[in-house]
Amino acid sequence: MKNAVGREIPEEILKLTGKEAFAGSYAKHQAVYQAATHKVAPVIDPNYSKVVDSIEEVLKKCGIKDGMTLGFHHHFREGDYVVNMVMEAVHKMGIKDLTICATSLGKAQNAIVPMIEDGTITNIQASGVRGKIGEAISNGKLKGLAIMRSHGGRVRAIESGETHIDISFIGAPSADDMGNCRAIGSQNGADCGVLGYAAIDAQYADKVVVVTDTLVPFPNVPASIDMTNVDYVVKVDAIGDPTKIATGAAKPTTDQRKLLMAKYAADFMVHTPWYKDGFIYQTGVGGASIASTKFLAEHLRKDNIHIGVAMGGIAQAICELQHEGLIDKIADTQDFDMASIEDIKTNPNHYEITTSQYADPFNKGAYVNKLDYVILGALEVDTHFNVNVVVGSDGVITGAQGGHPDTAAGAKCTIVIAPLLQGRIPAICTECTTVTTPGETVDVVVTDYGIAINPRRQDIIDAVKDTDLPICTIEELRDTAYKMVGTPDPVQFGDRIVGIIEARDGSVMDVVRQVKKAEF
Amino acid sequence: MKNAVGREIPEEILKLTGKEAFAGSYAKHQAVYQAATHKVAPVIDPNYSKVVDSIEEVLKKCGIKDGMTLGFHHHFREGDYVVNMVMEAVHKMGIKDLTICATSLGKAQNAIVPMIEDGTITNIQASGVRGKIGEAISNGKLKGLAIMRSHGGRVRAIESGETHIDISFIGAPSADDMGNCRAIGSQNGADCGVLGYAAIDAQYADKVVVVTDTLVPFPNVPASIDMTNVDYVVKVDAIGDPTKIATGAAKPTTDQRKLLMAKYAADFMVHTPWYKDGFIYQTGVGGASIASTKFLAEHLRKDNIHIGVAMGGIAQAICELQHEGLIDKIADTQDFDMASIEDIKTNPNHYEITTSQYADPFNKGAYVNKLDYVILGALEVDTHFNVNVVVGSDGVITGAQGGHPDTAAGAKCTIVIAPLLQGRIPAICTECTTVTTPGETVDVVVTDYGIAINPRRQDIIDAVKDTDLPICTIEELRDTAYKMVGTPDPVQFGDRIVGIIEARDGSVMDVVRQVKKAEF
Repeated sequence: MKNAVGREIPEEILKLTGKEAFAGSYAKHQAVYQAATHKVAPVIDPNYSKVVDSIEEVLKKCGIKDGMTLGFHHHFREGDYVVNMVMEAVHKMGIKDLTICATSLGKAQNAIVPMIEDGTITNIQASGVRGKIGEAISNGKLKGLAIMRSHGGRVRAIESGETHIDISFIGAPSADDMGNCRAIGSQNGADCGVLGYAAIDAQYADKVVVVTDTLVPFPNVPASIDMTNVDYVVKVDAIGDPTKIATGAAKPTTDQRKLLMAKYAADFMVHTPWYKDGFIYQTGVGGASIASTKFLAEHLRKDNIHIGVAMGGIAQAICELQHEGLIDKIADTQDFDMASIEDIKTNPNHYEITTSQYADPFNKGAYVNKLDYVILGALEVDTHFNVNVVVGSDGVITGAQGGHPDTAAGAKCTIVIAPLLQGRIPAICTECTTVTTPGETVDVVVTDYGIAINPRRQDIIDAVKDTDLPICTIEELRDTAYKMVGTPDPVQFGDRIVGIIEARDGSVMDVVRQVKKAEF
Repeated sequence: MKNAVGREIPEEILKLTGKEAFAGSYAKHQAVYQAATHKVAPVIDPNYSKVVDSIEEVLKKCGIKDGMTLGFHHHFREGDYVVNMVMEAVHKMGIKDLTICATSLGKAQNAIVPMIEDGTITNIQASGVRGKIGEAISNGKLKGLAIMRSHGGRVRAIESGETHIDISFIGAPSADDMGNCRAIGSQNGADCGVLGYAAIDAQYADKVVVVTDTLVPFPNVPASIDMTNVDYVVKVDAIGDPTKIATGAAKPTTDQRKLLMAKYAADFMVHTPWYKDGFIYQTGVGGASIASTKFLAEHLRKDNIHIGVAMGGIAQAICELQHEGLIDKIADTQDFDMASIEDIKTNPNHYEITTSQYADPFNKGAYVNKLDYVILGALEVDTHFNVNVVVGSDGVITGAQGGHPDTAAGAKCTIVIAPLLQGRIPAICTECTTVTTPGETVDVVVTDYGIAINPRRQDIIDAVKDTDLPICTIEELRDTAYKMVGTPDPVQFGDRIVGIIEARDGSVMDVVRQVKKAEF
């Protein structure tokens, strides 16, 4: 059947997964559900110790067995050691048929690809699967399905009981013997600033294991994850490579094309009705996004307007604007560089939020619902304003949903920045290879060749109609791109479905099929 | 059958409630249970508003009906307006057969007594029921049962699903339109410092209603209760009387008997092995307790020892010692005076903890488990070291379990202070009128006539054996009391069971029967 973004969702996959086809971004608003439950082994005896000597031992204590689901978070990003450390121990024990439910997986976890091939791991659920894991999935190596869900969607899956985590592993830069974890305090400098991705796991997993390189005296407060949800604490030598945790350190871009798009985005915003004192703002940490914030800041200074809350993943540029007084508060889900990690240690107006607070569609209200503006990227945008951020133009899974669909659904004005061409590939196209964010939640597409406004948003069209901004239609942008490089051939996929692009609410936005081997 | 503290628990009450008889304070340690679930109406539409104009309207929106359970907290203490405000609206709507699950009820809620009598309220669950509500229950006015449970026990009841709260009402000194609540910021000065009692309700109730006198701009952070759990926000004129919220403002006692017991308690502590740098300490806010802390402080200064964490309900005396540097951190469950409310607003080492973090026996580890010393009061202590803090010597329910059984079970050294005689009534007796804290968790009883150590604690007996402290047996204390005022006649109760004293783990510690009308 065709879902609400016009994608054909095979009945077999709906039957297999028990899922519904995507029916619209707000279809489940106020649709009452029963929250998940989990098992708890209470700690009443004050003499009981949670401290365990090794990963192997804790796996045994947790009763690891075939078919379980293990939870991981990616605050350590490319420097993460925890996933590999746990999976190597699991692999040695000969456990099979595991589901990995991670907040994201990337090249730091390339070492688990052989475990996909040998059946140790048979299902993967993550925001995205970059690197060799994505290639393995797209090439049909995973026995089961990969489910790609947004950050908010993962929280939903766990709290609604769709995904039940048997054992959650929380890599923590410091912890006390009761399991109070902080995102700072690592003796190895392996601090990550916040731990909000792991909060939902701690709340709903049967067993919660804290893996830390630094045991500190009780109480380790204020704790990001607190002892009331922690079963065991394991001290290891290192949880991550501090030089790789803070990747993506932002350098001002000098790419003229990016600067142009950034300027367009900022100039666009100031003509819309939400540009007023105290607005709520999110942007990414790519070159164009940071440049947008820089151009926006010039307007803020001139207009004596300040941002009420800057939210989402945080990098140095946002912290600097906050210090300058242009931003009141920073609501932080993830830190991308050392500057932001250092800032949250001492700045009371820079605070951690959980991924539920950030983006969960199934709680009683998340920060994304209060967003005025979000500036996002894209691999592809189609003429229905649908966006793809997961599957490359070669058909291989290579990106992550992240908070893209969550913020797009929540923001009053969702702006997607994409260069018209990515190399020789049109980023504006007739149909995305895969739909990951539905067009009904994408309001403005800014390219280096012009700005298209979603026709659903007459209010925004009216707001900018008397400006000098290079407004055009999305079809015009597509046509320009196709004129320059030709109409692209659609990617050739095989039949087997290897992955699902899950909508925020758990329905099926799209499917991802195995890539066809190129024939020469 | 007789339970582990030797109390006869009628089979009928076990059958009626589905409960077990108390089998020991640590019987349920690591006994796995399935956590409760609740219904959630997700808020996905960013245009949805939670703000509702009146209590009546919010009751309708929540679908109030006969037989529901309503949750309340008592951070406003004797100044609370919220319980009466909600119950008056409920009463007007003609709803019947409600269960009130409050963290405590006292004379501020005397107005609900007619609703007990007319069947609006048929069951009450609370830490205690002071004032006219206690009298009404003891006189058989409540159709169903009163369950008196400790603060930690209430968290357990909710998270284990034994008590399911349909609608929770959270009185909050400030809130934003999304429901982020803080315990400070009231425009009427009705601040209460912390909101930790309400945290478990917010997590497990189907509907969560914030009642506030002060709406503030989003985001109201750091929030004690956050928007992800809040369904509705109601703005009212006043939530409490600020002059009565901070009751129990501590004045140094001049009662020579209390000062003597306080000095005994402090002198006793310094001879026990946990008196070393960084120990964890809790005391109450009564005159003898505060005097104990004062005497203890003299030792701390002399011995150059400081307290790592002072926890529980907090008053000015503790804040002052923290400012002096004798206490590192204050983990706060409740504020008893303006000084402590003001202190937590600005002191980063004075922080809020939820009642789960504080005392819950069914989570994975609470603060009470880390206690070195707790100093507690008592209405009665018997020769088995069992303590009664709920039922007066006239048989009428008049007190509250509070954190008494929770801290006693957790602390390495539990010290109960009680004057040998309360007026003409012996506080040390052969059998408590009612058992509320089991003797196996009570280590030391300090009276004005001597100090008795529980024979189970040979380690403590050994530690103080070469001191000048007036050590004696609990029987000697009882005998002295009986010699002075005669052996007391046991209270005459009727047959009907009106209440249950619930152990921390949900089993039955004791029952409370209807009082017999005095016959002249």
